[in-house]
Amino acid sequence: MQFFDGGVCFPKGFTAHGVLAGIKKGRTKEDVALIVSEKQCNASGVFTKNLVQAEPVKLSRKHLERRRSYAVIANSGNANACTGAQGEQNALLMASCTAQALQKKGMTGVCTGDVLVCSTGVIGQQLAVEKIEAKIDELVAGLSKEGNVKARQAIMTTDTVHKECAVQTVIGGKDVRLGTMAKGSGMIHIHMGTMLGFITTDCAITPDMLDEALRESVEGTYNCVSVDGDSSTNDTLLILANGMAENPVISKKDDNYYLFLDALNVLNTRMARSIAGDGEGASHLIECTVTGAKDVQSARNLAKSVISSSLVKAAFFGRDANWGRILCALGYSGEFFTPGKTSVSFKSEAGSIVVFDHGTPVNFDEVKAKEILGAKEIQITAAMEDGSASGTAWGCDLTYDYVKINGDYRT
Amino acid sequence: MQFFDGGVCFPKGFTAHGVLAGIKKGRTKEDVALIVSEKQCNASGVFTKNLVQAEPVKLSRKHLERRRSYAVIANSGNANACTGAQGEQNALLMASCTAQALQKKGMTGVCTGDVLVCSTGVIGQQLAVEKIEAKIDELVAGLSKEGNVKARQAIMTTDTVHKECAVQTVIGGKDVRLGTMAKGSGMIHIHMGTMLGFITTDCAITPDMLDEALRESVEGTYNCVSVDGDSSTNDTLLILANGMAENPVISKKDDNYYLFLDALNVLNTRMARSIAGDGEGASHLIECTVTGAKDVQSARNLAKSVISSSLVKAAFFGRDANWGRILCALGYSGEFFTPGKTSVSFKSEAGSIVVFDHGTPVNFDEVKAKEILGAKEIQITAAMEDGSASGTAWGCDLTYDYVKINGDYRT
Repeated sequence: MQFFDGGVCFPKGFTAHGVLAGIKKGRTKEDVALIVSEKQCNASGVFTKNLVQAEPVKLSRKHLERRRSYAVIANSGNANACTGAQGEQNALLMASCTAQALQKKGMTGVCTGDVLVCSTGVIGQQLAVEKIEAKIDELVAGLSKEGNVKARQAIMTTDTVHKECAVQTVIGGKDVRLGTMAKGSGMIHIHMGTMLGFITTDCAITPDMLDEALRESVEGTYNCVSVDGDSSTNDTLLILANGMAENPVISKKDDNYYLFLDALNVLNTRMARSIAGDGEGASHLIECTVTGAKDVQSARNLAKSVISSSLVKAAFFGRDANWGRILCALGYSGEFFTPGKTSVSFKSEAGSIVVFDHGTPVNFDEVKAKEILGAKEIQITAAMEDGSASGTAWGCDLTYDYVKINGDYRT
Repeated sequence: MQFFDGGVCFPKGFTAHGVLAGIKKGRTKEDVALIVSEKQCNASGVFTKNLVQAEPVKLSRKHLERRRSYAVIANSGNANACTGAQGEQNALLMASCTAQALQKKGMTGVCTGDVLVCSTGVIGQQLAVEKIEAKIDELVAGLSKEGNVKARQAIMTTDTVHKECAVQTVIGGKDVRLGTMAKGSGMIHIHMGTMLGFITTDCAITPDMLDEALRESVEGTYNCVSVDGDSSTNDTLLILANGMAENPVISKKDDNYYLFLDALNVLNTRMARSIAGDGEGASHLIECTVTGAKDVQSARNLAKSVISSSLVKAAFFGRDANWGRILCALGYSGEFFTPGKTSVSFKSEAGSIVVFDHGTPVNFDEVKAKEILGAKEIQITAAMEDGSASGTAWGCDLTYDYVKINGDYRT
């Protein structure tokens, strides 16, 4: 599959923009992003499983009951969570002012329910929605095919790199494009996307199949990422499909559906890795793959338990090949496996090394291990003999900087 | 209830000792502890729920099937976990050499099955059991009523303070004594004791009731502690009751049972708090109490979710009253509650402050909050209106030192 520039603007009919509204004191870069499709889209989303849901999450869930959307507006700097009735009102205002501004610009078919809303930032403070209202006409006026650059910037909080990706595939003889951007760095865990993510596509696909593909793809991608074990109040992953590729409409799980799903998986895997690698304070991306497990879910849960372990994460920060902690984390995953038939190895661009072989410690070369663990991206493989299923999860190391970033986040 | 010195040696008939065997290179303090009762005890234990169980855990479980014991031997510096058949043999050797040494000293009724074995330290390296065998006669020869001092030292790893406690209660007109010592600092989580703990008592109680009391007490004490979310391979909490207090034997859940349980709860709560407060690198003990929950289990799970959150822990390190993270952690606990009827407050020796009141953010005094959060021990209360049950959990903050300690543990 080929990768392209352009992110969310890569698919036909989508434009974006970002402006600085000044939501959070001292911010000098864009903090409000807008993505718009010129045609109404089929739309779906997956959201945090946290009982405490931010106001934009509640609103977007409600709007998605129609399974139609034209636009997404998102702000950083304030999560609009735990903000009560006023917060609810503010989320609605973000949607309604966007719809009005788009109508003024000639998109007369856009109603408030067509606008999805996302927020990310500090919890428990009221969102200065008037600052967004003041900038909304400027935001709409600036929409362009190059707008992904400012939009992807606007959703970043503690992210150190922007995260976007675009791919193209062929479905029914037509080029079909998918683009995405995401933010996520802290408060990242395995229940749902645990970040903000936006996927655009010009694929023609029914709402049912779009929803199905999103949920299926999330299981092995975004749901296999952990930074710190905290599932946020704002996690949202949205997908908008405007059909402008004019491929035969995907309406059942046929070959075309799986072509679309493959492209979606490539996109989401790229984002999942990118979020893990940019985990708050992270110096290493840790990818754990479990092979030979009894089923896929079990393999994924085992892998997730490893990359979620504070002790494993701290060991990787110290480049310490402390594989005992990996066995320990596999052991408390809640999944069955046979420790006596398990092997563990580490791999990176600097080489590979087996540290535990069929239940027995290996007297390995510590110097070589340090070299391998010095790379930016490290693969852990736990090879079992309990079945034939595999699963991968992504995380990062636990560093001084994670503690520093989160010890004083609000000020 | 009155507290006493003496730890595990406080109850009648128990002696202890500790020696330096040199299990881990560079150690200068005792690393092998022995606790012995002059009469055979009824005994019980609770163990890690990790699928990967250390060899001493497997052996002690097996020995406890007899529900009888005379002695516990424990080493620090090596966990004897993931060590295969040789590890199994080494754990057994620890028990058998202890039994032989006690027999030589005149305790002719002691068999290998009467000796319980615990290990703590690095996973995946073979235990130098010959070093323990070489010291076993010295260890037995030194047994005394003051031996708790060296024994409690011998089980410490990254612990910065020793943890012991002793209480006395009156059951059926007789003074009954309970003593304990524990170690635990990292790899501490809420499934089971997550440490090593040893409880001695001269109470006369049947094996059934002893087992029942231990399990009941653990639920609200050791099982409500988390340092880092990692459940170790070696967690063990043992209780030995030799009956020398000569109280009427507790054989059912009568008033005397509950007197014993009360004393056990006092002891275990003290240890649970002590382990949390001495969490690796910790600068604060965090106690979270949930009130007004629908039932006790729900209250405890909500409280555990708060003290387990990396983001809550990092915020307390930074003395940042970021209560939004507390709501977030309550929200992903898996338990039901009504956010709109929830209030959150902080309390310490420096005062108390409400930060979230019935679902609404409070515009609180940040300076006062910083003062409150500056204390060594901090209480979080989450007051709900979903029922009348309460639960408490204990944790600590996440600091640079936690990362430092665990970034390079093996060397």
